[in-house]
Amino acid sequence: MTENRVYNFAPGPSILPEEVLQRARDEMMNYRSCGMSVMEMSHRSKMFMDIFSSTKESFRSMLRIPDTHEILFLQGGATLQFAGIPMNLLRGGTADYAVTGNFSGKAAKEAEKYGKVNLACDTGATGHDRIPAQSELKLSSDARYFYYCANNTIYGSEWHYIPETNSTLVCDMSSDILSQPVDVSRYGLIYAGAQKNMAPAGLTVVIVDKSLAGHAMPFTPEVMDYSVLIKHDSMLNTPPCWCIYMLGLTLDWLKTQGGVEGMEEIKRERARRVYAVLDDSSFYRPHVLPGSRSDMNITFRTPSEELDAAFVKEAAANGLVNVKGHRITGGLRTSLYNAMPMEGADALVKFMKEFEVRHHV
Amino acid sequence: MTENRVYNFAPGPSILPEEVLQRARDEMMNYRSCGMSVMEMSHRSKMFMDIFSSTKESFRSMLRIPDTHEILFLQGGATLQFAGIPMNLLRGGTADYAVTGNFSGKAAKEAEKYGKVNLACDTGATGHDRIPAQSELKLSSDARYFYYCANNTIYGSEWHYIPETNSTLVCDMSSDILSQPVDVSRYGLIYAGAQKNMAPAGLTVVIVDKSLAGHAMPFTPEVMDYSVLIKHDSMLNTPPCWCIYMLGLTLDWLKTQGGVEGMEEIKRERARRVYAVLDDSSFYRPHVLPGSRSDMNITFRTPSEELDAAFVKEAAANGLVNVKGHRITGGLRTSLYNAMPMEGADALVKFMKEFEVRHHV
Repeated sequence: MTENRVYNFAPGPSILPEEVLQRARDEMMNYRSCGMSVMEMSHRSKMFMDIFSSTKESFRSMLRIPDTHEILFLQGGATLQFAGIPMNLLRGGTADYAVTGNFSGKAAKEAEKYGKVNLACDTGATGHDRIPAQSELKLSSDARYFYYCANNTIYGSEWHYIPETNSTLVCDMSSDILSQPVDVSRYGLIYAGAQKNMAPAGLTVVIVDKSLAGHAMPFTPEVMDYSVLIKHDSMLNTPPCWCIYMLGLTLDWLKTQGGVEGMEEIKRERARRVYAVLDDSSFYRPHVLPGSRSDMNITFRTPSEELDAAFVKEAAANGLVNVKGHRITGGLRTSLYNAMPMEGADALVKFMKEFEVRHHV
Repeated sequence: MTENRVYNFAPGPSILPEEVLQRARDEMMNYRSCGMSVMEMSHRSKMFMDIFSSTKESFRSMLRIPDTHEILFLQGGATLQFAGIPMNLLRGGTADYAVTGNFSGKAAKEAEKYGKVNLACDTGATGHDRIPAQSELKLSSDARYFYYCANNTIYGSEWHYIPETNSTLVCDMSSDILSQPVDVSRYGLIYAGAQKNMAPAGLTVVIVDKSLAGHAMPFTPEVMDYSVLIKHDSMLNTPPCWCIYMLGLTLDWLKTQGGVEGMEEIKRERARRVYAVLDDSSFYRPHVLPGSRSDMNITFRTPSEELDAAFVKEAAANGLVNVKGHRITGGLRTSLYNAMPMEGADALVKFMKEFEVRHHV
């Protein structure tokens, strides 16, 4: 890192590529000689429409999104989609929800307002320490869709397979989107908050099979109705322009990393190095079982809460910040999103080893 | 303007104070030596919470918002509030809507999904060229609230009085908030999209009397329920952090302009200079009747559509950009938001006079 920056392991909002921030800074006052900042552009101006279109095209190309699916750039976060998805897709019927963490649990609870929810699984009894096997999923016969969260930011678990279901697949990819290729054609809807792997908080990307739109419940706000949003190409009202611009810069940067294919290799190696420390140690205890572990969020503990606190403090003194676990789980968590350089993971590994030597009894 | 910037008369997203952009640029890579950008901060970190709290406090102090009212920093734009307001306040009853332009019309239409809407007025028959007098408002006896839009961005009209009503006052102040003092205690709810006088697009500020919350319709998304949002201090989920930070910078800048009291003097004089050209001319025709004119958006025409188009083109060549009228109205529109320096208005006035001389027949 240059410019006296730290390695930021926050779970989101989180680290952005330094090159992206530098470009945003350099273009801040006067974007490409147009005399104004991107933040000042009318969303319907040619200048901004060019940014919008090229970002969308770049996103489509990066994830090889088929023409059957539309890409929407929305506001409101994943939390608004917890309601938006059932409002649009449930049609008063039943949906299967796989609860493997905090946010899938919240999504299931919100969906109950709009129809019947069947819990296809709930890993809460063992502290969400794993992703269930396909055979463990209890599917209902008449589900409109099957909902899951691909990566559980708080618990540090990640689905390493796409579930086979008898209904439309809906997936919250907020914390692992753009970290690997995805077969989008298998999904009815994928969505993600931007603030982990894509852009600053304030943008939610929804990838939706267009054939699913047009069945929103009558009380659905117009700006949450996918058919309206598709028709207006995300511009029924003013979109979060700055975040869309930042996503475009991130996609440009991602191309220099080999796209999602290149990023998959990087993120696997980056996470492998940290998990290796955990597995080679009797001092650190990882939270999630092998086979269910996230490449994005690594959760673990030292032998005591006092040492956990010392770890957070000493890490920060070494320029490794935001490694405290979520308040629900306690312990430690290091988030290794796309923008985390390998040097950041190596600095963390070095610190973890030294900390263990210093504090092991 | 320095840095080869233009005078941007766009209706929103729109011009931001140059000093605000410069500060954002200078703090971009490393905010106050914390080693990261504001865009990378966890919304629950102490660093960001300080930004959040001081912005909120500054906003409260600037508009002298009483403790009876909560300030919410939300996403989704005014359009999401078109649904959110009736979902929270209508309780299945009736609301009075004053339709004086495009957005109040859209708000009234959206509210019909949630209860009964009475049109207290509709100025559409005369092209929304004026604001009705108090005596013209048709109020229903049992309204839950009276809704109006303080400033009509597209048509260029503005309410210069607060309506007297027998129900809770609700006002969309998207395009004139922070341009003058407001007696907030007279309102049940005030809201505004940020992208005109406050910050980049992606933030909606809601000022709500706390006693009105807690009656949301059962299908209201959790993240749209004012009582939930109040309880979580706008952080049920990740807020639009960057826009909140930018609002804080704008409020700091506004203090240097004498706050909303100082800004009121500035904006009146700024608009007066442009309206003077219109009223002294037989070439330009203003759209809105005297007494109903907006200080923020000035709408007018030349003698022909061809000359309107020439005006837009020649103005741009003179560094005065985005003066084309909305596609609904045609004609010309110059938006003079808080961030427009008096020099920008003067440059516009000079250009208007020269254009008239060149093209008057």
